[in-house]
Amino acid sequence: MKVRILVSYKDSVLDPQGQTVKNALHTLGYNFIEDVRQGKIFELDLKELSPEEVEKVIPEISDKVLANPIIEKFSWQIIDKSQTREGREKIST
Amino acid sequence: MKVRILVSYKDSVLDPQGQTVKNALHTLGYNFIEDVRQGKIFELDLKELSPEEVEKVIPEISDKVLANPIIEKFSWQIIDKSQTREGREKIST
Repeated sequence: MKVRILVSYKDSVLDPQGQTVKNALHTLGYNFIEDVRQGKIFELDLKELSPEEVEKVIPEISDKVLANPIIEKFSWQIIDKSQTREGREKIST
Repeated sequence: MKVRILVSYKDSVLDPQGQTVKNALHTLGYNFIEDVRQGKIFELDLKELSPEEVEKVIPEISDKVLANPIIEKFSWQIIDKSQTREGREKIST
């Protein structure tokens, strides 16, 4: 079982890395880009867990280890081996 | 228009950051985690482009600026303002 967790700064938090990427893209002529925000992905391979266990444990791991809940938000989804989605996504802000 | 680009190491490339996260999670007792791979997300706000332009320009930007194609792979999807997907995803390896 594979879970993908996306961690990014909350919208209210400045993102200097994203700004730098935006400026680089503008320098290269991609002026239609209005904003860039950068974040992290974690792809976890898990032993098979029940959906209830996943719903409990993934937000716990994200909050405790992967994200800093003061300035970052996370969302997660279960993806199968072939990289297609199972349509589950939770947004935590 | 919002596009999300996911950049991660190719499967054949070692990921020491992911290993460190895995070890940290094991130390905390999450032993059901078999592997962790870490990557980057870029969320781009674009002026409205046609689907054809997006199909052309996003892989170009990803290849030239956001990812190192020698060791990294990227995938991208169009997301709307409310963070739901429009079902478009390209995997480039």
